[in-house]
Amino acid sequence: MPEFRPMPEDRFSFGLWTVGWQGVDVFGGAVRPPLEPAEAVHKLAELGAYGITFHDNDVFAFGATAAEKEAALKPLREALSATGLVVPMITTNLFSHPVFRDGGFTNNDRDVRRFALRKVLDNLDLAAELGARTFVCWGGREGAESGAAKDIRAALERYKEAVDLMTQYIVDSGYDLRIAIEPKPNEPRGDILLPTVGHALAFINELERSELVGLNPEVGHEEMAGLNYAHGIAQALWHGKLFHIDLNGQHGPRFDQDLRFGAGNARGAFWTVDTIENGGYDGPRHFDFKPPRTEDFDGVWASAEGCMRNYLILREKVRAFRSDPEVSEALETARVPELSQPTLSEGETLESLRAEEFDPEAAAARGMAFERLDQLALEHLYGVR
Amino acid sequence: MPEFRPMPEDRFSFGLWTVGWQGVDVFGGAVRPPLEPAEAVHKLAELGAYGITFHDNDVFAFGATAAEKEAALKPLREALSATGLVVPMITTNLFSHPVFRDGGFTNNDRDVRRFALRKVLDNLDLAAELGARTFVCWGGREGAESGAAKDIRAALERYKEAVDLMTQYIVDSGYDLRIAIEPKPNEPRGDILLPTVGHALAFINELERSELVGLNPEVGHEEMAGLNYAHGIAQALWHGKLFHIDLNGQHGPRFDQDLRFGAGNARGAFWTVDTIENGGYDGPRHFDFKPPRTEDFDGVWASAEGCMRNYLILREKVRAFRSDPEVSEALETARVPELSQPTLSEGETLESLRAEEFDPEAAAARGMAFERLDQLALEHLYGVR
Amino acid sequence: MPEFRPMPEDRFSFGLWTVGWQGVDVFGGAVRPPLEPAEAVHKLAELGAYGITFHDNDVFAFGATAAEKEAALKPLREALSATGLVVPMITTNLFSHPVFRDGGFTNNDRDVRRFALRKVLDNLDLAAELGARTFVCWGGREGAESGAAKDIRAALERYKEAVDLMTQYIVDSGYDLRIAIEPKPNEPRGDILLPTVGHALAFINELERSELVGLNPEVGHEEMAGLNYAHGIAQALWHGKLFHIDLNGQHGPRFDQDLRFGAGNARGAFWTVDTIENGGYDGPRHFDFKPPRTEDFDGVWASAEGCMRNYLILREKVRAFRSDPEVSEALETARVPELSQPTLSEGETLESLRAEEFDPEAAAARGMAFERLDQLALEHLYGVR
Amino acid sequence: MPEFRPMPEDRFSFGLWTVGWQGVDVFGGAVRPPLEPAEAVHKLAELGAYGITFHDNDVFAFGATAAEKEAALKPLREALSATGLVVPMITTNLFSHPVFRDGGFTNNDRDVRRFALRKVLDNLDLAAELGARTFVCWGGREGAESGAAKDIRAALERYKEAVDLMTQYIVDSGYDLRIAIEPKPNEPRGDILLPTVGHALAFINELERSELVGLNPEVGHEEMAGLNYAHGIAQALWHGKLFHIDLNGQHGPRFDQDLRFGAGNARGAFWTVDTIENGGYDGPRHFDFKPPRTEDFDGVWASAEGCMRNYLILREKVRAFRSDPEVSEALETARVPELSQPTLSEGETLESLRAEEFDPEAAAARGMAFERLDQLALEHLYGVR
Repeated sequence: MPEFRPMPEDRFSFGLWTVGWQGVDVFGGAVRPPLEPAEAVHKLAELGAYGITFHDNDVFAFGATAAEKEAALKPLREALSATGLVVPMITTNLFSHPVFRDGGFTNNDRDVRRFALRKVLDNLDLAAELGARTFVCWGGREGAESGAAKDIRAALERYKEAVDLMTQYIVDSGYDLRIAIEPKPNEPRGDILLPTVGHALAFINELERSELVGLNPEVGHEEMAGLNYAHGIAQALWHGKLFHIDLNGQHGPRFDQDLRFGAGNARGAFWTVDTIENGGYDGPRHFDFKPPRTEDFDGVWASAEGCMRNYLILREKVRAFRSDPEVSEALETARVPELSQPTLSEGETLESLRAEEFDPEAAAARGMAFERLDQLALEHLYGVR
Repeated sequence: MPEFRPMPEDRFSFGLWTVGWQGVDVFGGAVRPPLEPAEAVHKLAELGAYGITFHDNDVFAFGATAAEKEAALKPLREALSATGLVVPMITTNLFSHPVFRDGGFTNNDRDVRRFALRKVLDNLDLAAELGARTFVCWGGREGAESGAAKDIRAALERYKEAVDLMTQYIVDSGYDLRIAIEPKPNEPRGDILLPTVGHALAFINELERSELVGLNPEVGHEEMAGLNYAHGIAQALWHGKLFHIDLNGQHGPRFDQDLRFGAGNARGAFWTVDTIENGGYDGPRHFDFKPPRTEDFDGVWASAEGCMRNYLILREKVRAFRSDPEVSEALETARVPELSQPTLSEGETLESLRAEEFDPEAAAARGMAFERLDQLALEHLYGVR
Repeated sequence: MPEFRPMPEDRFSFGLWTVGWQGVDVFGGAVRPPLEPAEAVHKLAELGAYGITFHDNDVFAFGATAAEKEAALKPLREALSATGLVVPMITTNLFSHPVFRDGGFTNNDRDVRRFALRKVLDNLDLAAELGARTFVCWGGREGAESGAAKDIRAALERYKEAVDLMTQYIVDSGYDLRIAIEPKPNEPRGDILLPTVGHALAFINELERSELVGLNPEVGHEEMAGLNYAHGIAQALWHGKLFHIDLNGQHGPRFDQDLRFGAGNARGAFWTVDTIENGGYDGPRHFDFKPPRTEDFDGVWASAEGCMRNYLILREKVRAFRSDPEVSEALETARVPELSQPTLSEGETLESLRAEEFDPEAAAARGMAFERLDQLALEHLYGVR
Repeated sequence: MPEFRPMPEDRFSFGLWTVGWQGVDVFGGAVRPPLEPAEAVHKLAELGAYGITFHDNDVFAFGATAAEKEAALKPLREALSATGLVVPMITTNLFSHPVFRDGGFTNNDRDVRRFALRKVLDNLDLAAELGARTFVCWGGREGAESGAAKDIRAALERYKEAVDLMTQYIVDSGYDLRIAIEPKPNEPRGDILLPTVGHALAFINELERSELVGLNPEVGHEEMAGLNYAHGIAQALWHGKLFHIDLNGQHGPRFDQDLRFGAGNARGAFWTVDTIENGGYDGPRHFDFKPPRTEDFDGVWASAEGCMRNYLILREKVRAFRSDPEVSEALETARVPELSQPTLSEGETLESLRAEEFDPEAAAARGMAFERLDQLALEHLYGVR
């Protein structure tokens, strides 16, 4: 049996806010002390990660002066340098401070929108300085609890204005950065703007420099809407827009659980890894989860390790599945490869198509043989093939 | 109190499959006899509708010969002519016959895809002949129950191929028709392609003649994913893509209930009508519901009438809400109009923005006054203002 | 139009934790300063409430000494005395402090279970002293995120042990108190024990003094499981177990929204008030909601006022509905009163029943006329009748 | 690797309506021809099942005469005799015929309720004759789409009347039969009575001969409400009420998918098998699923075989999990066995409990080590331990 030991070449990364989550929720206070970013870096390096990511205020406090920022960044830089870990992505906290009670980019208050932009511009500078290539925007407080409170079309206009200004700044500054929007349907707002992979993809098409903007879809966020995450990232890949991913676990429509990857929808995780590994995605395998509030730091590290192990276990399984001759034959029987053939032949016209004879009753009698195919997949997941 | 009597100028339309639904579901057979299309037309005209819509096989049987089709269409045409009702929209049944067990445009079986295309082309001719301006595509069987059965990117490629061929045919034939895609997350398939308004909007951007393709969002389909329907159609309007609508009722994530409009999420219905009436949508107010299986034909007509009455009741309420001076003042207090102001001033640079002074703590103390605003809306809904 | 002004005889009560919620959630910190309990009492009295309720640690800190408790209770007692407000219910916080990370009564750690019991016994004394008649138990942290972590049957055994000890203590102390269990399906735990009204009702039947234990069902908690709240409390009434209620608003399966009553599922709220007013419930109309994080204190009070106004508005509507002659006739047509007739006649035997002739086809043709009836209800809700 | 070949001693049973489902749903007609019950019996025997179950109208038509029934039953009896298969459970179809449009036992129409009772009594005779020991009641049409249509308390009264009459008849007839109620939250009705395991358990407590009535919980039905199925059957076992089970697969709150067992929530299936195997349940392992509409008969049998194989695979995994020494140690560390210790010691009083010293801060610092434990479980599921 392989060891499933994570290595830097596996490109696993973690948000500092994941292992650093202290457990504050609506119903209770912190269960764990603060975790120094530098300590997190050292520990994650030991466990086999290759990178870390963060929100500005994961490292320095909201409103920190330049000197305070630098003081906070110094030990982080040293830890990165000592461990060789990289910072492939940075993101901005536009949701924790009460000034963002109605969001950042789409806050009804123009002064707050302007402040949010300044905070993001500062953070773009930091991202570039630290060599990050992806800049995630999660608009967690961009939304509403009630119908009149938010003019949705105006809000989308402001959202577009903000992202257009960001890409303009990136280009003007010569930064090698791309933006990745992270959709979420609800929580903490009653309904959030750009609630799914689809809505965000559509939005991006309206942007000035849409080529610089893609997606950072999170497993749990799509599953909270009952959507199939693997289908979602497959569509994002089809549009050329899967810039980054957030891997974790969830049990369908309920609160945002942020379970470790693999815990939650196990079959969904199999197809997620299949889509990531075989669909052309080449970014980091990034985990955005929360070690449950039941855990102390031993549990925190056990859950972080579990995320990576589960990915490696599933990666081996999808490789075995895709190279299993019985699977190839079952895919053929299920006519899966036939879907890659254009429906019209090269040069064929609609006229000739319409002239074709066809017996629908005969065709209707043929089963698709999907159950056998899926059982093979399931037995790979179970490790009994 | 107004009478809320539907008139043709209100532009209410009904699918023939709505009032004609016989009540067959997974657990039981027909509870009502078939309803002749011509009879439905006469009855809906009496009730105040202005139009009807249908799938090809709502009027003539699957596989009907040209003569059989004409025999079935004749009484419908006569009823339309006698009543003055129009056919603003037509759609194709690519989901009932067993040949479509794996879908139409994205069936793994290429022969079935070709057959689906032929069926749609025939129906485009019929749509043009009957003067329909919108051609709805609901891909209810385009999807999968399991991960390996459907290559999602290949499926999107085939979907695109099909819609591109349709728009080519429309243009080549000189038809004055636009296509409207109807998203749905699941049921009857485990997961359906283009599951939400957002996914369909994104898809449209990849099409050859995307200007001819828009959306037909259904209330219940978005609410099955826990999404806010009014937000969804507002985003569709922002993209210029709200070509048609399907109004009905639903109680959140569960089976597709297709309740009459107004039954289901009542507050959502208020904001839906507000968005339709004030958001620039100018198409028919189309109902796609199912009179519950408990009902006989009296109940069928009561439910159809209820759809229209509820729309008119809510339309009056949203007009009253939007013209209430206390509402205007509450909107102002909630800074809702401020969201329409660009975040940057005309000609302003990011440099000047970044130089601005701002006290986030002071701004953070200001509440948004959304509760008061929403209570005003709710009291308009309740009819106590 | 009536004024819908709340009066003490309407028996509206509020948890101190509702108007006092500072807005801390998983994604952000406090947006409002702490609210002194005494101040809340005075303000709620002004607005027309008749009572307040609280968790022990809403008034004094976790671990407070007897002197600290008394110092904290004194201004509360004075405010109650000054305003005439009562404390109909008290409850215990077994979920905020990290010691309760795995729950109280069903914590795997026996020492914590013992501590939880002590905390509850102290709070029972306080409840009796303050004249509360209901003692709510919400086991928010009693549950699990994963399968092996909790032995469910052992947990139910411990839950029973704890509640049995509580009722023994109540009886032994001569307290005039009843316990009301508050079910919830999930959040903050992945899955919570006694997840619905039904599970809690079943549990109560196993208790030593089940007559002293009933339910405190919350609107949002049942709706998070997609269940019909009015049906739930109707079943609780049928079992004689509706001891208390928590009124608020929710939009189906998602995070616990705790919207003000009336916001959320408006039609559900109508039937909830109908069931409360006409079903024999005689306890307080208690609100357990959270003023959204967007609001400052003006918004807090606007939302509290909205809860009460909406209840009064709906109460008037259900009265009008139940006394509308057209409704009576529609209920008759829908054969609703016929359901109250026993299926077998007085003294009838199964033998005579089996001998009866019946034409199912004829009976099957009769519709139930529910759509017309429901449209009447909806028009009462809309205020257009 | 074991073969996972089902044997009669594994006690797998299938509803005739599962493999016999022709694929009719709301959106389409039959995709498969009818399957003769006798043929199903032979085929299921070949696959390794030990029993079959059925609704009366799975074998003979609604309204069949005694002779017609006997003609239909004869080949079934012969097949049972030839194969040795048994009929451990029978159930009644009170939902397909239009006469049951508003349900059976709780239909507003008293004549229909009486007819439903007669149908059930006939079926009890048949159950006894065929040697069934369990008689399932699924009240799929007992419910409502709207608030006024159903008087819930009257409906529960009628439900109780019907079940009391059934148990009276069983006792009077000397039948060795127990009733098992199958809860479901919705579909085909908007809201169904007794929506969850909990509601049905509570209901049973009000019955005259509650000892004869228990539950038949279905995986998908609980998961449609977002509930944890393993927790649900564990509570049923705690009450001594798990009389029968319906195993299948579902993806959370959405339409009733009835996937084969193992497809759907794979982790949930692991804990389900753990609870069944280690919780004292000794009834049949019964599958209530629907082979997807994509399949022909080969697919039907592949899916039936998959149900049994997946159960056997998971059974082996839970055995390995429970006998893994590292798991035992992790359970100990997570203090899981400690939950089986009473919270009070033998003979201990509340007084002595209250006198105990305790340092909550020290206790609060200890993590529960659930993540490590769950990762071990997951690795057993994945087959990598």
